[in-house]
Amino acid sequence: MQRKIRMGMVGGGPGAFIGGVHRAAARLDGLIDVVCGAFSQDPAKSKAMAGELFLPESRCYANYEEMFKAEKALPAGERMDFVTIATPNVSHFAIAMQALDNGFHVLCEKPMTYTLDEALKLRQRVRETGLLFCLMHNYSAYPMVRQARLFCTGGELGTIRKIVAQYDLGWLAAPNAGKQALWRCDPRYSGACACIGDIGTHAAHLAEYITGLEITHVCADLATFVEGRKLDDDGSVLLRFNSGARGIIEACEVASGEENQFKIRVYGETGSIEWSQMEPENLIRRANDEPMRIYRRSWAGMDPSLNVWCRLPAGHPEGFIEGFANIYTDFARAIDAHRAGKDYTPSYPNEDDGVRGMAFIETVLKSHQNDQKWTPMAPC
Amino acid sequence: MQRKIRMGMVGGGPGAFIGGVHRAAARLDGLIDVVCGAFSQDPAKSKAMAGELFLPESRCYANYEEMFKAEKALPAGERMDFVTIATPNVSHFAIAMQALDNGFHVLCEKPMTYTLDEALKLRQRVRETGLLFCLMHNYSAYPMVRQARLFCTGGELGTIRKIVAQYDLGWLAAPNAGKQALWRCDPRYSGACACIGDIGTHAAHLAEYITGLEITHVCADLATFVEGRKLDDDGSVLLRFNSGARGIIEACEVASGEENQFKIRVYGETGSIEWSQMEPENLIRRANDEPMRIYRRSWAGMDPSLNVWCRLPAGHPEGFIEGFANIYTDFARAIDAHRAGKDYTPSYPNEDDGVRGMAFIETVLKSHQNDQKWTPMAPC
Amino acid sequence: MQRKIRMGMVGGGPGAFIGGVHRAAARLDGLIDVVCGAFSQDPAKSKAMAGELFLPESRCYANYEEMFKAEKALPAGERMDFVTIATPNVSHFAIAMQALDNGFHVLCEKPMTYTLDEALKLRQRVRETGLLFCLMHNYSAYPMVRQARLFCTGGELGTIRKIVAQYDLGWLAAPNAGKQALWRCDPRYSGACACIGDIGTHAAHLAEYITGLEITHVCADLATFVEGRKLDDDGSVLLRFNSGARGIIEACEVASGEENQFKIRVYGETGSIEWSQMEPENLIRRANDEPMRIYRRSWAGMDPSLNVWCRLPAGHPEGFIEGFANIYTDFARAIDAHRAGKDYTPSYPNEDDGVRGMAFIETVLKSHQNDQKWTPMAPC
Amino acid sequence: MQRKIRMGMVGGGPGAFIGGVHRAAARLDGLIDVVCGAFSQDPAKSKAMAGELFLPESRCYANYEEMFKAEKALPAGERMDFVTIATPNVSHFAIAMQALDNGFHVLCEKPMTYTLDEALKLRQRVRETGLLFCLMHNYSAYPMVRQARLFCTGGELGTIRKIVAQYDLGWLAAPNAGKQALWRCDPRYSGACACIGDIGTHAAHLAEYITGLEITHVCADLATFVEGRKLDDDGSVLLRFNSGARGIIEACEVASGEENQFKIRVYGETGSIEWSQMEPENLIRRANDEPMRIYRRSWAGMDPSLNVWCRLPAGHPEGFIEGFANIYTDFARAIDAHRAGKDYTPSYPNEDDGVRGMAFIETVLKSHQNDQKWTPMAPC
Repeated sequence: MQRKIRMGMVGGGPGAFIGGVHRAAARLDGLIDVVCGAFSQDPAKSKAMAGELFLPESRCYANYEEMFKAEKALPAGERMDFVTIATPNVSHFAIAMQALDNGFHVLCEKPMTYTLDEALKLRQRVRETGLLFCLMHNYSAYPMVRQARLFCTGGELGTIRKIVAQYDLGWLAAPNAGKQALWRCDPRYSGACACIGDIGTHAAHLAEYITGLEITHVCADLATFVEGRKLDDDGSVLLRFNSGARGIIEACEVASGEENQFKIRVYGETGSIEWSQMEPENLIRRANDEPMRIYRRSWAGMDPSLNVWCRLPAGHPEGFIEGFANIYTDFARAIDAHRAGKDYTPSYPNEDDGVRGMAFIETVLKSHQNDQKWTPMAPC
Repeated sequence: MQRKIRMGMVGGGPGAFIGGVHRAAARLDGLIDVVCGAFSQDPAKSKAMAGELFLPESRCYANYEEMFKAEKALPAGERMDFVTIATPNVSHFAIAMQALDNGFHVLCEKPMTYTLDEALKLRQRVRETGLLFCLMHNYSAYPMVRQARLFCTGGELGTIRKIVAQYDLGWLAAPNAGKQALWRCDPRYSGACACIGDIGTHAAHLAEYITGLEITHVCADLATFVEGRKLDDDGSVLLRFNSGARGIIEACEVASGEENQFKIRVYGETGSIEWSQMEPENLIRRANDEPMRIYRRSWAGMDPSLNVWCRLPAGHPEGFIEGFANIYTDFARAIDAHRAGKDYTPSYPNEDDGVRGMAFIETVLKSHQNDQKWTPMAPC
Repeated sequence: MQRKIRMGMVGGGPGAFIGGVHRAAARLDGLIDVVCGAFSQDPAKSKAMAGELFLPESRCYANYEEMFKAEKALPAGERMDFVTIATPNVSHFAIAMQALDNGFHVLCEKPMTYTLDEALKLRQRVRETGLLFCLMHNYSAYPMVRQARLFCTGGELGTIRKIVAQYDLGWLAAPNAGKQALWRCDPRYSGACACIGDIGTHAAHLAEYITGLEITHVCADLATFVEGRKLDDDGSVLLRFNSGARGIIEACEVASGEENQFKIRVYGETGSIEWSQMEPENLIRRANDEPMRIYRRSWAGMDPSLNVWCRLPAGHPEGFIEGFANIYTDFARAIDAHRAGKDYTPSYPNEDDGVRGMAFIETVLKSHQNDQKWTPMAPC
Repeated sequence: MQRKIRMGMVGGGPGAFIGGVHRAAARLDGLIDVVCGAFSQDPAKSKAMAGELFLPESRCYANYEEMFKAEKALPAGERMDFVTIATPNVSHFAIAMQALDNGFHVLCEKPMTYTLDEALKLRQRVRETGLLFCLMHNYSAYPMVRQARLFCTGGELGTIRKIVAQYDLGWLAAPNAGKQALWRCDPRYSGACACIGDIGTHAAHLAEYITGLEITHVCADLATFVEGRKLDDDGSVLLRFNSGARGIIEACEVASGEENQFKIRVYGETGSIEWSQMEPENLIRRANDEPMRIYRRSWAGMDPSLNVWCRLPAGHPEGFIEGFANIYTDFARAIDAHRAGKDYTPSYPNEDDGVRGMAFIETVLKSHQNDQKWTPMAPC
């Protein structure tokens, strides 16, 4: 790369969990500088964050409209290359559309938008502009998740028969779950679903990402266990895939005592894999005719093509930020190639993944609301 | 106890997996003697087994009818007290009915019968005779499963919200899975369902046993992955319970590479538990406001009432046979008390559990066969 | 086998932990009957135990001398075949010698005797009589320990370089550790060492058993952490083996919170294995050029020759009693062959293992008591 | 902080494992900029690294002497604040001394120097200059290691009795272990010991750090298993501590199949802890009278004072780089406070830890070379 890639940020003010993760991930490999931001709707908070980041006052903006306008006016050698959107779901669409309209690439938190309709429009706009769009489905960037994908799509498990994803968190078990919870459980900010949008989409994405299959039908049972909450805090979904494979997604945010228990198992005709986010460097592989093997990140057995997504020797734990950073670094390289007019085949989730995620949310909700067992998920 | 309890056996000939487990479990605590049997429909095999057991030839019978008749004719000090039925499901009913008619207590493999209708009739007969009936839902006899029940029913997790049971085996992944598989996948011997009858009933039983709740509705998706197989080898079931709790049962016998992966998690308002059959001496307990605790069999934290189901100090692994043996020993004590006309409150699963299991199988099948999301499970 | 093998017992009265394990293990496979015993020096206790075992009063003896005499006088078709010695160490020698003198085979708890000198004499007597002697080093009978031995002695790890055994128990952490602790910490009953005799010998035996190597030198540091205790409750020992391999034994009975944490790792030139008693069905195998493999009891990868030591399919946990029972069943088969004058190659630990254990104890103590780094262990 | 802290680097050229970790860790929290370096003795490699870091050519130096001179001459607003030394051990002393002489703070890889004598001189020079010296004992910066220290030094385990540290790596199992191995096994670059210096010092440091105790005597057995290697590739060390506690360090770099298996257990009178580097977010706590607890980073039970060393909610894995980054961020804050003349109490390991590490190495070697059991470690 000729120079560092320059990132602006909308959202991620003081106290926001995921904003700090984005910045740490962007910094980790030294390819990206955060150069500007509209970190909060509260100017004082936004300034405070800019101060923490040692940004000049001039690059701390009151809102994203102002930011895009001002950055666009800066010399090419200074202005930001892309914007990271880390705001509540309701505003993803407007921010992303305006970023694209002003010529900026976009990295967006999931779910992509507030509605499927918005997602389709946004994808259309991405395609028209030729700009890059990256969706932060970070779990797909763990090396051992990618190894799982290689095993499944490379046929090493035989025909895939069953996929089971579990995603349990305890953080919403009690009514008062803190500031982060407020917008996530408020349909005005979060969208049609809370639990399914927040974690169910991660599960659905990983199920499709690892297997290369597509969900075609869902049968959903959503629940709201905490009184007064307006959206789902739990969901169970039966799945059918385009190959005939079956599946289950269990998503629960009132799972008292669970930290971030995201696991996936894939059973094929001749073997199976199991991965668990809380031990992300292990990939368990089982077969009826072999001893159980635990493939480890950066150890013998990992496909050499994955070395590019690893930083440390095996046994030196990499974690959540490294997965996130893989998305950022991939996106930075794609932007660099885009600038230079060079070919680059990125691995990060994109606008298509975003559209599928929104379709999943809306299909699950539709299924939940009717008495028919199966609800088809339209191809998209 | 005044004397050892005497056991006869139908089924469990050479090569039968579960027959040997029954005998080892019956022997373990030294309270039961196997005194007779009709071990196989093949007289040579039956004799071979009797020889292995050092039984006199006179106590090796050609069939169960002959056995019940001959044993009944023996002096009270010699004849068997109860019969263990370890045959394919199709014959459970006839054998059990005849045993009861001849005055013998019955210990029966699960599922209880071939149909729900049979189960209801058998329960009726048990009640009429006043004899004892024990159903071998062995997993409910692990001490840490009973500890889980104490936590759940004692209110230590708050209101139960979600129950997730996973039961995965790889043994039927390939078409030719050996002799044991033949009858289990043959509707003439096994009944309406294979996978759901074989392992789904274990999951359903444990979900109800641990929580004290009852399943009221199911939504099932069964599959037969191996071509030519006539019954389900996989099933996914959404559950609703009488308290409003939700649940999932995942049952799969084509889960390549899985040995006997039976796990259950229960999430309550203020805490949760997780138990895994392959590490049966651990009971994980989680809460949002406590460090994770792993309760261990016979260690501090286990309820003292459970000591009676433990044989060894903590750290000296007990396993599958010990769980089985807890059922046998409990049944032997109940028979002893029955003989003496004393009170005894047994813990083993009984005819009511058997009826519920059969109702579960038939409701799941009915759900699978229709397009409506929820199928009610009749109270029974 | 023509008939069941008949066992008598010295020790193992009410409240004795290991006595009950011996009986359960002897019963498990249905090859052995407990026919008589001198279970306690207290006649009431001995009778109580005989009652629990449903033994006739005539077979409950006041002491072992009486038992050997009376049993010897019984007809061949009734009298016991072997005696199990489950008394404090101090009396092993006298009981075993007298059993041999009366023509009975002997199964003895470890350590074999009170002193090395006794052990050498006892071995000599075993050889002279041609009777069978079995030492209860039960851990060597776990199938996956035997698999470890196959890997090591079969050269699959290359030249063995390092062996590390850890054995930690918390039960003696406090001064008052119950009745079981009393004799074990009393030099009059236990011998020269407590911790080293009780668990250090297990570690030393397994290190030699798995690798096929012999300890030649030790460097020991023993400690007594609980005030007033007269023997060691902790020991750390550096080892050298006859091949040049190095090793460590860590043995601690004041390891607060540990249940029965016995682990062993063996590192060879090209691979390594790790086994842990509390998860006895796993054998971890590592290599620099392979993914980690977990070999499981009765699953693919286990040597077929070990099937004879397994009772259940993989995933149905076997534990401590099954390991114990492997020793008993092997011994019963050896006795049966001895009676019939047939060849039989047993796998159980014998008088040679017993002598090495006593030599280990005495060498460790000698090492502890002098300032020289290395103390040689005489070949024996 | 008023501004970012500026870091220079000696060593860490292309292909060096640990250099990249230093840079990633320095970047992670956004408090430090790498502004210059002498990355390699090969100018082309040094330039290549400077290019990867987007440094201006003027800040890429031919060697450290030139770097210190040139940086010192820069305006205060540009010149580096501290130097990170990531070269082979032999040059630590000279570089560090010259850095101090030129007024730069120093962050140094461990072991501190080539000899104890150098370490003592360097510590003396640090004290004279009043500059800051940080030693990269990164493992002490994992939050759960610090929690372990709080438990031990806060008396929650009672009097500490035994400390066992295991550090196993397989990377040197074969003769040809790559470039990284060359200097580490060469006494001209590495010092008196290889394995003991490389990983034994980590184990010794953590044992003292967690317990607050000091090693007073060692009894060591070193080995060189790979033919032709000039230094130890394995070591076993018995320990005695100033409190009377006992200990063991097992350090092995030919442990085939091990990645970076660093574990430590501490047993106290009333409880114990276990921590494993490959699962760094768990801290196991055991007691005889409590169920096992697993304390988790950022979950209930972790001391709130440790939040400052955590970035993510529990269940979002943090790893090796985060631990490293805790040292860097602490050091950056200390430098900032030093500049501002403010008080700051750092937590990072310093010149005293460095001296103790070198004393440990030399004492272990001395012990290995003589026949006396115990070799005292001089207070320092």
